[in-house]
Amino acid sequence: MEYRIEKDTMGKVEVPAHVYWGAQTQRSIMNFPIAQDINKMPKEIIRAFAYLKKAAAITNFEAGILPEDKKNLIAQVCDEILDGKLNDQFPLVVWQTGSGTQSNMNCNEVIAYRAHVINGGSLLDEKKYLNPNDDVNKSQSSNDTFPTAMHIAAYQILTEVTIPGIEKLRDTLQAKSEAFKDVVKIGRTHFMDATPLTLGQEFSGYVSQLNHGLRAIKNTLAHLSELALGGTAVGTGINTPKGYSENVAAHIAALTGLPFITAENKFEALAAHDAIVEAHGALKTVAVSLMKIANDVRMLSSGPRAGIGEIFIPDNEPGSSIMPGKVNPTQCEAMTMVACQVMGNDVAINIGGSNGHFELNVFKPVMIYNFLHSARLIGDVCVAFNDKCAVGIEPLTENIRKHVNNSLMLVTALNPKIGYYNAAAIAQDAHKRGITLKQASLEFELKGLDFTHMTSEQFDEWVRPEDMVGGLK
Amino acid sequence: MEYRIEKDTMGKVEVPAHVYWGAQTQRSIMNFPIAQDINKMPKEIIRAFAYLKKAAAITNFEAGILPEDKKNLIAQVCDEILDGKLNDQFPLVVWQTGSGTQSNMNCNEVIAYRAHVINGGSLLDEKKYLNPNDDVNKSQSSNDTFPTAMHIAAYQILTEVTIPGIEKLRDTLQAKSEAFKDVVKIGRTHFMDATPLTLGQEFSGYVSQLNHGLRAIKNTLAHLSELALGGTAVGTGINTPKGYSENVAAHIAALTGLPFITAENKFEALAAHDAIVEAHGALKTVAVSLMKIANDVRMLSSGPRAGIGEIFIPDNEPGSSIMPGKVNPTQCEAMTMVACQVMGNDVAINIGGSNGHFELNVFKPVMIYNFLHSARLIGDVCVAFNDKCAVGIEPLTENIRKHVNNSLMLVTALNPKIGYYNAAAIAQDAHKRGITLKQASLEFELKGLDFTHMTSEQFDEWVRPEDMVGGLK
Amino acid sequence: MEYRIEKDTMGKVEVPAHVYWGAQTQRSIMNFPIAQDINKMPKEIIRAFAYLKKAAAITNFEAGILPEDKKNLIAQVCDEILDGKLNDQFPLVVWQTGSGTQSNMNCNEVIAYRAHVINGGSLLDEKKYLNPNDDVNKSQSSNDTFPTAMHIAAYQILTEVTIPGIEKLRDTLQAKSEAFKDVVKIGRTHFMDATPLTLGQEFSGYVSQLNHGLRAIKNTLAHLSELALGGTAVGTGINTPKGYSENVAAHIAALTGLPFITAENKFEALAAHDAIVEAHGALKTVAVSLMKIANDVRMLSSGPRAGIGEIFIPDNEPGSSIMPGKVNPTQCEAMTMVACQVMGNDVAINIGGSNGHFELNVFKPVMIYNFLHSARLIGDVCVAFNDKCAVGIEPLTENIRKHVNNSLMLVTALNPKIGYYNAAAIAQDAHKRGITLKQASLEFELKGLDFTHMTSEQFDEWVRPEDMVGGLK
Amino acid sequence: MEYRIEKDTMGKVEVPAHVYWGAQTQRSIMNFPIAQDINKMPKEIIRAFAYLKKAAAITNFEAGILPEDKKNLIAQVCDEILDGKLNDQFPLVVWQTGSGTQSNMNCNEVIAYRAHVINGGSLLDEKKYLNPNDDVNKSQSSNDTFPTAMHIAAYQILTEVTIPGIEKLRDTLQAKSEAFKDVVKIGRTHFMDATPLTLGQEFSGYVSQLNHGLRAIKNTLAHLSELALGGTAVGTGINTPKGYSENVAAHIAALTGLPFITAENKFEALAAHDAIVEAHGALKTVAVSLMKIANDVRMLSSGPRAGIGEIFIPDNEPGSSIMPGKVNPTQCEAMTMVACQVMGNDVAINIGGSNGHFELNVFKPVMIYNFLHSARLIGDVCVAFNDKCAVGIEPLTENIRKHVNNSLMLVTALNPKIGYYNAAAIAQDAHKRGITLKQASLEFELKGLDFTHMTSEQFDEWVRPEDMVGGLK
Repeated sequence: MEYRIEKDTMGKVEVPAHVYWGAQTQRSIMNFPIAQDINKMPKEIIRAFAYLKKAAAITNFEAGILPEDKKNLIAQVCDEILDGKLNDQFPLVVWQTGSGTQSNMNCNEVIAYRAHVINGGSLLDEKKYLNPNDDVNKSQSSNDTFPTAMHIAAYQILTEVTIPGIEKLRDTLQAKSEAFKDVVKIGRTHFMDATPLTLGQEFSGYVSQLNHGLRAIKNTLAHLSELALGGTAVGTGINTPKGYSENVAAHIAALTGLPFITAENKFEALAAHDAIVEAHGALKTVAVSLMKIANDVRMLSSGPRAGIGEIFIPDNEPGSSIMPGKVNPTQCEAMTMVACQVMGNDVAINIGGSNGHFELNVFKPVMIYNFLHSARLIGDVCVAFNDKCAVGIEPLTENIRKHVNNSLMLVTALNPKIGYYNAAAIAQDAHKRGITLKQASLEFELKGLDFTHMTSEQFDEWVRPEDMVGGLK
Repeated sequence: MEYRIEKDTMGKVEVPAHVYWGAQTQRSIMNFPIAQDINKMPKEIIRAFAYLKKAAAITNFEAGILPEDKKNLIAQVCDEILDGKLNDQFPLVVWQTGSGTQSNMNCNEVIAYRAHVINGGSLLDEKKYLNPNDDVNKSQSSNDTFPTAMHIAAYQILTEVTIPGIEKLRDTLQAKSEAFKDVVKIGRTHFMDATPLTLGQEFSGYVSQLNHGLRAIKNTLAHLSELALGGTAVGTGINTPKGYSENVAAHIAALTGLPFITAENKFEALAAHDAIVEAHGALKTVAVSLMKIANDVRMLSSGPRAGIGEIFIPDNEPGSSIMPGKVNPTQCEAMTMVACQVMGNDVAINIGGSNGHFELNVFKPVMIYNFLHSARLIGDVCVAFNDKCAVGIEPLTENIRKHVNNSLMLVTALNPKIGYYNAAAIAQDAHKRGITLKQASLEFELKGLDFTHMTSEQFDEWVRPEDMVGGLK
Repeated sequence: MEYRIEKDTMGKVEVPAHVYWGAQTQRSIMNFPIAQDINKMPKEIIRAFAYLKKAAAITNFEAGILPEDKKNLIAQVCDEILDGKLNDQFPLVVWQTGSGTQSNMNCNEVIAYRAHVINGGSLLDEKKYLNPNDDVNKSQSSNDTFPTAMHIAAYQILTEVTIPGIEKLRDTLQAKSEAFKDVVKIGRTHFMDATPLTLGQEFSGYVSQLNHGLRAIKNTLAHLSELALGGTAVGTGINTPKGYSENVAAHIAALTGLPFITAENKFEALAAHDAIVEAHGALKTVAVSLMKIANDVRMLSSGPRAGIGEIFIPDNEPGSSIMPGKVNPTQCEAMTMVACQVMGNDVAINIGGSNGHFELNVFKPVMIYNFLHSARLIGDVCVAFNDKCAVGIEPLTENIRKHVNNSLMLVTALNPKIGYYNAAAIAQDAHKRGITLKQASLEFELKGLDFTHMTSEQFDEWVRPEDMVGGLK
Repeated sequence: MEYRIEKDTMGKVEVPAHVYWGAQTQRSIMNFPIAQDINKMPKEIIRAFAYLKKAAAITNFEAGILPEDKKNLIAQVCDEILDGKLNDQFPLVVWQTGSGTQSNMNCNEVIAYRAHVINGGSLLDEKKYLNPNDDVNKSQSSNDTFPTAMHIAAYQILTEVTIPGIEKLRDTLQAKSEAFKDVVKIGRTHFMDATPLTLGQEFSGYVSQLNHGLRAIKNTLAHLSELALGGTAVGTGINTPKGYSENVAAHIAALTGLPFITAENKFEALAAHDAIVEAHGALKTVAVSLMKIANDVRMLSSGPRAGIGEIFIPDNEPGSSIMPGKVNPTQCEAMTMVACQVMGNDVAINIGGSNGHFELNVFKPVMIYNFLHSARLIGDVCVAFNDKCAVGIEPLTENIRKHVNNSLMLVTALNPKIGYYNAAAIAQDAHKRGITLKQASLEFELKGLDFTHMTSEQFDEWVRPEDMVGGLK
């Protein structure tokens, strides 16, 4: 490979001749050969940096400390980044300096050097028209840019991927809940037969979980909307012009279309990432919900002949390389695996979040890596599960009817008529003798009442599954 | 020990003669000999049951399905429970049936049998005046009472213990932040010297963390305010009178003085405990904050002679059994240990929360046990840390002044004057030669500027720590 | 309450008149009002301290630095502690100083003052015959005693509670596996019907899990057998006589009957508790196994009429306060809740273990608290599950036979005869038309073979569930 | 893009014309659009499949059920995979069916179709010479191949990446420990000054941690060496020839050079992945150790002027985009971030591992994904930390000497001479008055001894830091 020489404050470095990055990016590649094939800094962070570098340039220009042509050049490269034209210029990994300094410098270098080329210069020029630190990073520090990029990226992925994905699934489950509102089925508690409910009611619980989960996520957006930018090195805002924090936040808000504001307290914004911890707490709550829903769906669809078999889910692929004709609930499996991952990611985020020291938390990359991972996984898996599974769910009415009619727990309807103890004795007798609840009821000698036997008519009037599902939705 | 014979639907059981509990409680003692000395069902849950049993009795009475005298008897025993008079009547452990059925029955039995005694009966009477199932548990199921008790207990402890504890510490830190607003000190990022800030600014970050944490907790109260009661066995509300859900929630709200409402969806309320997961997510966010704060405090107070030594914390006890005169940051240690525990508890809650199946989550006791543990620990440790440590924090001004004056990172103030590269070279030179920043600055030959040397006057004007702490709070 | 005055190096403290503890214990009570009703320092740690204080006294006596009568007095009080006679003298909580200094001093004080009384003195004497620091704590520091107590307590509970509990359950499952070795049943993968196996084979998997888990635990005992004692303040062994480390470890080994040795490296032994992390890693592996086993048992026993219903488990208690006659898999629920707790405790231990700094880890109490909790829970729940559930498991042969005979996955036996694709088509056809596998097989036109239809005799010869369960145990 | 039509048992699928994969792989791409850009099935799993498919072909050939030419073709393609020639033929993601069926089929298809092309056929031929199911997957199921690939990949990465990485760092730290064996320095406990030790002793603790960690990892290899292959669909080994399990394990052992054996119990091997859980438990133990070591290194090197500053670590890159000349402990930061990730991954693995049901655990991909992630991260970060940090660590002797000489905790050496209480009073006096320990010692009036003042000679003889570091290594 051909190289050119770049310099930073520590000296010279050989850099591949045709890349836009410079000395500090190259040092990071050499110093951190850690999972380089699988753990690149997430692209969402690079995009977020493009927004903030552009906003900073505009703000600096407006403050009179950056010339207009430099501002325009920076903005132009940022747009190229946002358009995906420079994707291969960001080679760094998550496992670098914990402040993300090197990814900030990667952005600064690429913007400065690409701008130099746009401006007619050559990568081989020793002096570039823009300086990565003095121009592109003006009024900034890694310590405030990286957490700003974290919040931008987190807020964006939640609103663009995660929330829409959950809502899509929620809408389908809501429609199913309504479609199945008259399908009376056996309830199950402790995995054991219980009193009946409708399939629509069962699905309404999932809808409620997702609605609460969506609300939980949205509750965390306010903290994520606070941007650290303007705090610079330690939160005091050293080397920033007057009004910078508010102005740059306003520009980021305008560029992204999201309601970002400057953080009220910059010391927290650099030294802690509780907003990430808090927001991921909501994501793991949704993961918990998804585990429940996916488990129910696969158990309800289990069988086809030796399981519960109360709902049909679509057959998407052959299920076994050895058992012909087998079909499996694979979307449920992807979803439950995602749930595991998100619960694990949560712990990584907690530990990183708890280990900030003094003026800086230096677990920034690992925190945002896990956050973006979870947010994408939840969004994507909700869509996949929705499209390939949920939309096709249908009741298997024959099994449903068989299960509800056989159930001994219909006896619960008798409690108000004959008392819990009589009712229990009837159910136990039916179970022991393997007979129907009705037969056991008619034969049983009731105690402590003013009548000793139930009549067939009484039983039929009192024990009606469709009356046991209540007025509750 | 003397015994009496009690019965349930499975038969007879020997029960200690003088206890108020009955057959089902006794069975649970025998069936679950698991950590019985250390893991009793939390007292907060027992208290919550007292509120709900009383509210249910009133609601049943108002619905015309429970006689007034029975209502009054139930209410009277519930008040005794709330007064702590029956504390020794609840012997069951967390590790029982996952629906908490046996603790519900423990309450039903104690209320029924104690009421019988109040009513003039004897524990030896075969038939008691109140029946645990038909009277005390009327219009209820374990499946809706236990989650209701979970929400009551969780909401109460958050508002009575956790939030006030955090607020107390927050207020002290806020006062310290104001008191220390003019104490200029060295900043530290990556554990390395950075630009200065004030000690008040540093503490303001902790205040901001706790304020955000408080907001995060409060955001979760809405979900916790939803009560499952009225859902009974599977969420359909079988065997409840009309209007029961709303009425009983209103009575619980009135009795507790907290804004409880009936859950919009009872199927979720029984089958999932996402509200607990969500609220504990906020608690672990606070735990993350506390770890950060306590770590900072102990590192800032480290020494006395070979550490950082910038703040004084109170000496509360001899610190070492072998090193005479040693004093340690023990409140920080208690606080960081609590943080560990809460982060661990969070995982237990997540796993339990994700494993609900069909109409019931049967990880209720383990979830609420961990929740209440965390909520109490955070509340208690904030108070202890506040009273025994935070209130006594004072700056050690001599060390603070020495550190800030020696710092090479004051060089950052020169960036706008001489550029990042010149500034870096000066700092490196001062570091290498072990000289002051000023000396290095004056001797350095500047590059790329219209002057080649800085004057002493320029240095003194440009590098002033007190000007570097910005206008930011 | 009556008080007496005690002193330590910080001054005077009021102590309840009749307790054996002194000033430092009392300070800890006052300084750490954190969850005092529920989180006492585990009794296993107190017992471990009794062993080590006795061993230290003997070693000091043999080294000629402690008079015989003081040695004897110390040993006598330690024996009283081990006999449980002084249980109420250890009031401190987990949430104290992170080195456990105060619990070490609690032991030192109780031993010194109780010895003084045994020796004829009075608690009111200003000067006691034994000094807590100079005599009882001689050649020791909290920094080496507490981790020594951790290893003693951990090793003991594993060998006395955890391992025997697991082995008891393992033995029962092993016996069941043999008893059920001829019960051919449907297999299930992905919750879907699969090829058959025997119930004995299914249970053999559980046995194998537990055997591997036992081996995993035992693999960690070597690290736990290493004792820190002799390292004193920072690991250098300051203020210990020659040979002390080896001798005191030998005495502890003799007193406990367990193969303790002195840690090769005392610096690790004070500053890190990787042995606890490692051993708890094995405990959580067992928790993972138990979750699997308990889930299988409850799902296999689900029903009685709308579930899988292939095994019977004992009815231990009424299962529902509202649904008469309901019986639930409550032992499975206790076991799976324990599994949650252990997985949560693991995280608390990891975080504590990772946060040791310099010469000391100050998360000792939280680590051992969680460790002992998990070890006891696993041991206890295995015994309860064994005695109240596993021993009573029996196959429900009618359901088992019905499920295996209906299964379409018996088609797998046809793969070697007619190829995967033909077999798949037959299974799909049978499923779609709701007919038996045999009927579908006979009607299907085979492709790519030298015969186009299977005969009834061929089907019966090729598809025999009992031949599909292999020679594998 | 051009397409060709491929078929599986569910029908036709359009597949890109020139890829070697077939219908089932293509279905998986379409069905699981989940994080496709970042979560490909790890390459280590694909390589492991190549070993096992080759071994299976050889075993089938030797058993007389696969023709020699087909065996050779399969082996040839497997070698191509191992040589990395077919890397772009494995497009599937982790988030697929939980048994990994589709990745097994991806391998089967690529091997069959690539073999067909090698054999002179065309991808457009409707019938290929080898059938993915009947030939390549012969005597196999996803259910036994995927867990076999998991163990192969896990064992390989541990022995090729993780263990060598840890050992490399251990060796460097061992050398440093020896090099620094005479550097007497202040000890620190609770972040507070304590008695002295040598820097070599401090580093020996790290060495001991890593040695124990290596032993912990190696203890788990036995379980990982057990292979599921031969269990096929549910563990019974249906459709395998006699002796297959043992033979195929022997072939895998020969091909990989690792001591694989057939699992004694195939039911466990399919339904549980406790071996992965157990082995990752050892990895997280090492992560805990690395967090401790990296934290110590960065705190010991903190400064340069307002920190501890007792060791030098190499400057690898400019540390700040705003603070010129700043150098940060970036390798420590990468290492501690890795530790977070591994502790998070552990939870994901635990949850996945605990959720196996009946005959199959369907969290296989998420478990091995996290395992391989951790194993690689630990191995890589140990090497980076070693090469870029540990090898360059040197003591900063001036600071070290200053800290130890100033220390008040040297007073501990006086305990045996003047008792703990006198010593404590001296230390407190020195601290309060800001004087040296010696001055305070000479002025202090001793109590309870036969002399009232210490002489200067006594102090000098008794308090010698170099004598306080003991004979312990």
